[in-house]
Amino acid sequence: MPDTSFFARGAGLTVGEIASRAGAEVGEGTDPNAVLTGIGPLDRAGPDDCSFFDSPRYAPQLATTRAGCVFIAQKHLALLPEGLPHLIAGNVQAAFAKTGRSFYPAALLPDAITTTEGISPRAEIDPTAQIEDGATIEAFAVIGPGVKIGRGTIVSPGAVIARDCAIGRDCRIGAQVALSNTFLGNRVVLHPGVKIGQDGFGYVAGPSGLDKVVQIGRVIVQDDVEIGANTTIDRGAIRDTVIGEGTKIDNQVQVGHNVAIGRHCVIVAQVGISGSTTIGDGVMIGGQTGVNGHVTIGDGAQIAAVSAVSADVPAKSRWGGIPAKPVREWFREMRFLSELAMKGRSARNERDE
Amino acid sequence: MPDTSFFARGAGLTVGEIASRAGAEVGEGTDPNAVLTGIGPLDRAGPDDCSFFDSPRYAPQLATTRAGCVFIAQKHLALLPEGLPHLIAGNVQAAFAKTGRSFYPAALLPDAITTTEGISPRAEIDPTAQIEDGATIEAFAVIGPGVKIGRGTIVSPGAVIARDCAIGRDCRIGAQVALSNTFLGNRVVLHPGVKIGQDGFGYVAGPSGLDKVVQIGRVIVQDDVEIGANTTIDRGAIRDTVIGEGTKIDNQVQVGHNVAIGRHCVIVAQVGISGSTTIGDGVMIGGQTGVNGHVTIGDGAQIAAVSAVSADVPAKSRWGGIPAKPVREWFREMRFLSELAMKGRSARNERDE
Amino acid sequence: MPDTSFFARGAGLTVGEIASRAGAEVGEGTDPNAVLTGIGPLDRAGPDDCSFFDSPRYAPQLATTRAGCVFIAQKHLALLPEGLPHLIAGNVQAAFAKTGRSFYPAALLPDAITTTEGISPRAEIDPTAQIEDGATIEAFAVIGPGVKIGRGTIVSPGAVIARDCAIGRDCRIGAQVALSNTFLGNRVVLHPGVKIGQDGFGYVAGPSGLDKVVQIGRVIVQDDVEIGANTTIDRGAIRDTVIGEGTKIDNQVQVGHNVAIGRHCVIVAQVGISGSTTIGDGVMIGGQTGVNGHVTIGDGAQIAAVSAVSADVPAKSRWGGIPAKPVREWFREMRFLSELAMKGRSARNERDE
Repeated sequence: MPDTSFFARGAGLTVGEIASRAGAEVGEGTDPNAVLTGIGPLDRAGPDDCSFFDSPRYAPQLATTRAGCVFIAQKHLALLPEGLPHLIAGNVQAAFAKTGRSFYPAALLPDAITTTEGISPRAEIDPTAQIEDGATIEAFAVIGPGVKIGRGTIVSPGAVIARDCAIGRDCRIGAQVALSNTFLGNRVVLHPGVKIGQDGFGYVAGPSGLDKVVQIGRVIVQDDVEIGANTTIDRGAIRDTVIGEGTKIDNQVQVGHNVAIGRHCVIVAQVGISGSTTIGDGVMIGGQTGVNGHVTIGDGAQIAAVSAVSADVPAKSRWGGIPAKPVREWFREMRFLSELAMKGRSARNERDE
Repeated sequence: MPDTSFFARGAGLTVGEIASRAGAEVGEGTDPNAVLTGIGPLDRAGPDDCSFFDSPRYAPQLATTRAGCVFIAQKHLALLPEGLPHLIAGNVQAAFAKTGRSFYPAALLPDAITTTEGISPRAEIDPTAQIEDGATIEAFAVIGPGVKIGRGTIVSPGAVIARDCAIGRDCRIGAQVALSNTFLGNRVVLHPGVKIGQDGFGYVAGPSGLDKVVQIGRVIVQDDVEIGANTTIDRGAIRDTVIGEGTKIDNQVQVGHNVAIGRHCVIVAQVGISGSTTIGDGVMIGGQTGVNGHVTIGDGAQIAAVSAVSADVPAKSRWGGIPAKPVREWFREMRFLSELAMKGRSARNERDE
Repeated sequence: MPDTSFFARGAGLTVGEIASRAGAEVGEGTDPNAVLTGIGPLDRAGPDDCSFFDSPRYAPQLATTRAGCVFIAQKHLALLPEGLPHLIAGNVQAAFAKTGRSFYPAALLPDAITTTEGISPRAEIDPTAQIEDGATIEAFAVIGPGVKIGRGTIVSPGAVIARDCAIGRDCRIGAQVALSNTFLGNRVVLHPGVKIGQDGFGYVAGPSGLDKVVQIGRVIVQDDVEIGANTTIDRGAIRDTVIGEGTKIDNQVQVGHNVAIGRHCVIVAQVGISGSTTIGDGVMIGGQTGVNGHVTIGDGAQIAAVSAVSADVPAKSRWGGIPAKPVREWFREMRFLSELAMKGRSARNERDE
C-alpha cells in the first residue's frame, strides 16, 4: 500500500538526539544510535516510530506495541515490556509533542493551497494596499484599500480583507476568512472560515423596532494567536475587542464586542463569550461553556466544559456547572441531588410495597 | 400568483403508483387512477398534493384538508373525514418521505450553482490534479496539487481543496467548503461552509507559552455521508478522524481530532464531540449536546439534546442530562428536585403564616 | 500617534443639536454651542467625545472622565462631578445610541470591500439574472440563473447566490454568504459566512440506512432583518422557514427547517432552534439556548441564556433553565438545591465530628 499520509517523513533523528531535544533520559538497554522517522500511538506505531505511554489504562497497548521507542515516566517503568527501547521523561506529553514538532516541521503551520508565489494574478488587490515582498496572496483572495500585509504571511483563496486592516508577518490567513476593522500581530494563524471584525450585536428598542447601536471599535489580535475554523469575533462597540498574545482559540467559538481576553489562554470549541467580558492571562475554558457579558475571569482560572459563567470568577480558581460555581461546591450539589433522588426512590418503593 | 417554489412539479404519479412505491394500501373509495404532482402539509396541500396524518393533534387540519390524498395509519382511520382519498401505511412518515423523493428527484441533492459543465475557466486548478471526466468544477473553486476528484462530483464556487485530498464520485462539495488532509468516499454531500481537515486543537505548556502538538492524521469520510452547513471536522493528531458510512451530521457540529463516528449515525445541530472519542453505529445525538474527549458511546445509543456526556455510554441505552445518565435516572432526579422545591416552598409558606 | 480608528469623525454636532436629536435636556451649566465629534466610554472619551453614565457601578469613571459631555439620568445627577457638561435623558442608552448613529452614519451598514461600482468583471453572473442599476456585485461573487437583486444592494466578494433567489433593495450580503431557495426583503443585512436555504435535516430509517426527506420549502427573510456571522438557516421541508420583519439574529445561530420567527425578535449568539418551532413577535432568546422542535414561544416572551426550551412558552413570560420553566420556579429550585446541599454538608460534618 502506498503511503497515504499527508505529512512526509524526513531523514529522522537518532534516539539520542530525540532524548536530548526533549530533555529525556535514554532508558537502560536502549540504543541511542537507532534512527526514528515518525510518531504514532502505541497500537499503530511501527519500528521507525516514536510513541508514548502516559496512563496505566493503555498498559495492554504498551505490552504489545511495535514502536521503535517509547517515552515513559519513571513511575511507570514497571509496566514496560522487556526489551522495549524507551526514553524516560518528566513530562511525557511535552517530550512527545516536542519530538513530533522535530519530525514534522511542515505540520507546524498551514500550507498555501496553491503553488503561487507572491501575488496571484487572480487575486483582487486594491492599488492602495501595502503588501511586503515575501507575502503570498492566493487566487480569489480580496485585499481592500489601505490594507497592510507583512512578509511571510499567506492569504489563502477566498479570504477577504476589508479596508485598512493590518496583518503582521508570518501569519496564516485561511481560506474563506473575512477580516474587517482588525489588526493582527505576527505569526497569527486563522483557520478557514474565521470571521473577525463584523458588527457587534447591539440594539436599543426604538419607536418602530430595534435601533442599531453603532459599533465603532476594532479587533486587536496579538502575536502568536491561533484561531479555529468558523470562529467569530465581533469588533468593539466603543472599546476594542482584544485577543492577547499566544492565546489559542478552537473552532466555532463566539467572542462578543468589547471582550478582552488575556495572554496564553485556551478556549475550547463552541465556547461563547458575551460582550464586555474580561478574561485574564492563562485562563482555560472548556468546550461549549457560555460566559455572560460584563463579568471578569481572573488570571489562571479554569472553567469546566458545558458550564455557564454568570458572575466574576476569582484568579486561579476552578469553576464549573450551570450556573458555574467553585467545582467543589458544584460536585457536592450534584452528588447530593443524586443521593437524595436515590433515597426518594427507595422511600417511595417502600411505601408502594 | 406565479409559482414561486424552487422545485418544479413533474408529470406526477397516480395514487395507485404512489401506493405501490410506498408499500401502502389504497383506501376504500379512493380512486387509484387520480394523478398527484406534489406534496404538502394538511393545512396547505391542494387537490394535486399528497399529504400525511401521523398524530391526533393534527385532527383539526385533517378534518378540513384540501389534499388530493392522505397517508394515514390503520389505527387513525376513524378520524378520517368522509370521502377523503387516502392510503393506509404501516409507517406513515416513511411512506410520505418516499413519495416526496419520487415527486422531487431534483431535491435529493444540491444543484450546481452555475450552468458550467466540466471545469470552469474561472476555477484555479493545479496541473497535477486528477479530475475525472464528468466532474464539475465551478467558478472560483480552487483545486490544489495532487487532488483527485471522481466523475459526477460537483465542486461549488469558492470551495477550496488542498493538496492530495481525494474526493469520490457523485459528491456535492458546497460553496465555501474547505478541505485539507481529507479523503471523501462516494456520494458524500457537504453543505456550504463545511471545513474539514484543519489542525486539531492540541497544545502543551512550554517555557514561554503554549507549544503546538503537531496534527499529522487525516480525515476519512466514508460513502453516503451528509454534513450540514458550517460544520467543522478536525484532522487526527496521530490517528485519523473517521466519519462512518451513511452517517448524517447537521449544521454547526464540531468534531475534534481522532474522533471515530460509526455508520448510520444521526448527529443534530451544534453538537460538539471532543477529541479521541469513539461513537458506535446507529447512534443518535440530540442538538447542542457536548461529548467529552476519550469516551465511548456504544452502538445504537441515543443521547438527548442539550446533554453533556462525560462517561462511556452503553450500547442501545438512552441517556440525557448534564452530566448525562440513563434517562430514567435523569427524569427521576429532575422530578424529585421539582417536588422537593415545591414542598420547601409550602413549608416556608406555612412557617411564614 | 496617527488615528487608527476605522470610522472617521465628521464635522460633529453642537451639544444643543445632540440634545434635540436625542430628546434630552441640556444640563445646568452646560454650553449648548460646544461642538462634539465622537463617542466613547467614560474612561476613554476625550473633550471632543460624548459619553454616557447608566449605572452607579461606573461612578469612579464618571468622577474622572475627560468626556466633553455625558448623558445621565435625572436620578443620577448627584453623582455628577462639578462642572461636567451633561445631557439629562429619560433613556440614557437609547439617547447615546441615537447620538452614535448621528456621528457615525458610515457604521450603520457594512461597506463594500472593494471600490467596485456596479458589477465587477470578476464576478460570475448568469445572463438570466436580473440586477437593478445601482446594485454592486463585487469580485468573485457568483449570481446564478434567474436571480433578482434590487438597487442599492451590495453583494460582497465570494458570496454565492443560487438560482431563482430574490434579494430586495439596500441589502448587504456579506463575504462568503451562500443563499439558495431564499427570498430576502429590503434592507436585510447578512454578515460574512451566513448560509441560508440549504437542506433541512430530515431522514427516515430505511432498509439500508437513512433515507432523505426531501426539503422543498423556501426561506423568507423579511425587511430590516440583520443576521450575524456564520449563522445557518435551513429551508423548509414542506413549509417555509420565515424570519419576521426587523428581527435581529446574532452570530452562529442555527435555525432549523419550517421554523417561523416573528417580528422584532432578538436571538443571541449560538442559539439553536429546532425544526417546525414557532416564535412570536418581540421574543428575546439569550445566548446558547436550545429550543426543541414543534414548540411555540408566545409574543414578547423572554428566555434566559443557556436554557433548553422543551415545551410551549406563554406570551410575555420569562423562562429559563434546563429544562426551561418560569424564572421564579427556576431560581427557587436552584436556591433550594444550594441550601439543601449546604445543610447536607453540615449534617455530614456533624456526624463526622
